[in-house]
Amino acid sequence: MFEVCLLGTGGMMPLPYRWLTSLMVRYNGSNILIDCGEGTQVALKEKGWSPKPIDLILFTHFHADHISGLPGMFLTMGNSERTEPVTIVGPKGVREVVESLLIIAPKLPFELEYIELDGDSQRIDFKDVHIDAFKVSHNVTCYGYSLSIDRAGRFDAEAAKKLNIPLKCWSKLQKGEVIEEDGVTYTPDMVMGPPRKGIKVTYTTDTRPCKNIPIFAKNSDLFICEGMYGEDESLDKAKEHRHMIFSEAATLAKEAEVQEMWLTHYSPSLFKPKEFLDNARKIFPKTYAAKDGMSADLVYEES
Amino acid sequence: MFEVCLLGTGGMMPLPYRWLTSLMVRYNGSNILIDCGEGTQVALKEKGWSPKPIDLILFTHFHADHISGLPGMFLTMGNSERTEPVTIVGPKGVREVVESLLIIAPKLPFELEYIELDGDSQRIDFKDVHIDAFKVSHNVTCYGYSLSIDRAGRFDAEAAKKLNIPLKCWSKLQKGEVIEEDGVTYTPDMVMGPPRKGIKVTYTTDTRPCKNIPIFAKNSDLFICEGMYGEDESLDKAKEHRHMIFSEAATLAKEAEVQEMWLTHYSPSLFKPKEFLDNARKIFPKTYAAKDGMSADLVYEES
Repeated sequence: MFEVCLLGTGGMMPLPYRWLTSLMVRYNGSNILIDCGEGTQVALKEKGWSPKPIDLILFTHFHADHISGLPGMFLTMGNSERTEPVTIVGPKGVREVVESLLIIAPKLPFELEYIELDGDSQRIDFKDVHIDAFKVSHNVTCYGYSLSIDRAGRFDAEAAKKLNIPLKCWSKLQKGEVIEEDGVTYTPDMVMGPPRKGIKVTYTTDTRPCKNIPIFAKNSDLFICEGMYGEDESLDKAKEHRHMIFSEAATLAKEAEVQEMWLTHYSPSLFKPKEFLDNARKIFPKTYAAKDGMSADLVYEES
Repeated sequence: MFEVCLLGTGGMMPLPYRWLTSLMVRYNGSNILIDCGEGTQVALKEKGWSPKPIDLILFTHFHADHISGLPGMFLTMGNSERTEPVTIVGPKGVREVVESLLIIAPKLPFELEYIELDGDSQRIDFKDVHIDAFKVSHNVTCYGYSLSIDRAGRFDAEAAKKLNIPLKCWSKLQKGEVIEEDGVTYTPDMVMGPPRKGIKVTYTTDTRPCKNIPIFAKNSDLFICEGMYGEDESLDKAKEHRHMIFSEAATLAKEAEVQEMWLTHYSPSLFKPKEFLDNARKIFPKTYAAKDGMSADLVYEES
């Protein structure tokens, strides 16, 4: 199960009943948070999830609405007795920014480890999750993130029987191990079919449309994209502030051939995003205007 | 009108439906905020007040639950087009702390001015409001604040007539001005009675009971005091974390002979503060367990 929850859907400032945009992903014991603005810890508590198991936090950029909740989140993680290290990923300078904020959260019971992004894109493997950070186009350095998990091929029991592979070796071969038993070497390719489609989620906010987005979002099961403004008439404002309108997000979703798109990071002046949904749906029908706490358990396409 | 609103009543961490403790005071065009934890800007918005006119922010201390909302508040003040300077008051080091946090709110359209507190107490006059900062007893340097306004004596119209003071001078004398008119000097003491009782509000959180509290809270119309734990059995825990139980706050209120006390800064584990109210009321009957957004318009006692 690959569980995602969009904890908030607001841009710029938290509002009563609309938290700032951030995403929580839970898979196989990994808890990954993307962005942590003011109030994210409250949104997480409303969802009923604990902050203690968060072991990786990815930052898109350093505008306050994406990071100002970090000191409070750290303290609450500390109060919940976390002692395992936490990895922080973000644009170059993330260590300096986080350490500046730690002036109000100075004594944490866990270590922090940093990965600073620099190039146009970077692959990070975190436990079983592949994370692709890719540069997008905002008024400061900003990254989008694509999170994916692999799925091994199907196990061919008939082949295993024909090759007389002892039963006790089967599960190890399924896990990709090479085994030597009674002088015979068994390798996974003897019994495993080609890798099957895994799961992929792509998240990008605070950006104009840019070439990296459809490249890295390609074939995502879920594409979470900023939609700062609903109406096409806001295009000039979107360009000025380096954000997007709904129809631009939809065009990216279509180009990336994703399964489904959730819009988020609404302007505080956008009271009812649903009213403008048709502007996106006429381009990419499977668009949803996300609400705070919207979540999904993503499952493999084929059984 | 001296308007006070306790924007939140929580300690340690913001919770769904309980913001972190902070107080907003509005008087004669001055907007004064005491503490600004994560979410204070949302609490202010829920109250329906704008952050733009905040011109003075007082910090009790630098634990994150009292200051982590500052970068977001500043950005929202900037977005509301504030350009006038903002004065920041807090324990020694407040400039360094605030400037560290500004790494995520770097380009504000207003200047910041700092007043760093150092001694056991300090008087600050801000427009028409007298502010007494007084050191309390927490595990880091922490101050309480007493805010008061003066009220001039009654204008004696009979005396003014007897002294043949021209009518056009009356309002100036009421404002405390000395006037020379046709070679005659008129001074306020000729027509003004002795100063009358003004209004006084005292606010203290994150402290054990200590001698400064009843001294500076003396005769307050409203005393807002921390009550981290409700039951007397939590005394040891309160001592350990340098906080108070309800009955200790009540003992201070009684000693300071205040008009009314509001309890605040509840532990996240204190779900229903009202259930423990009797522990305070048996000592100081006019105790209230404050809720988020609780407010009062304080008026002069005598007409």
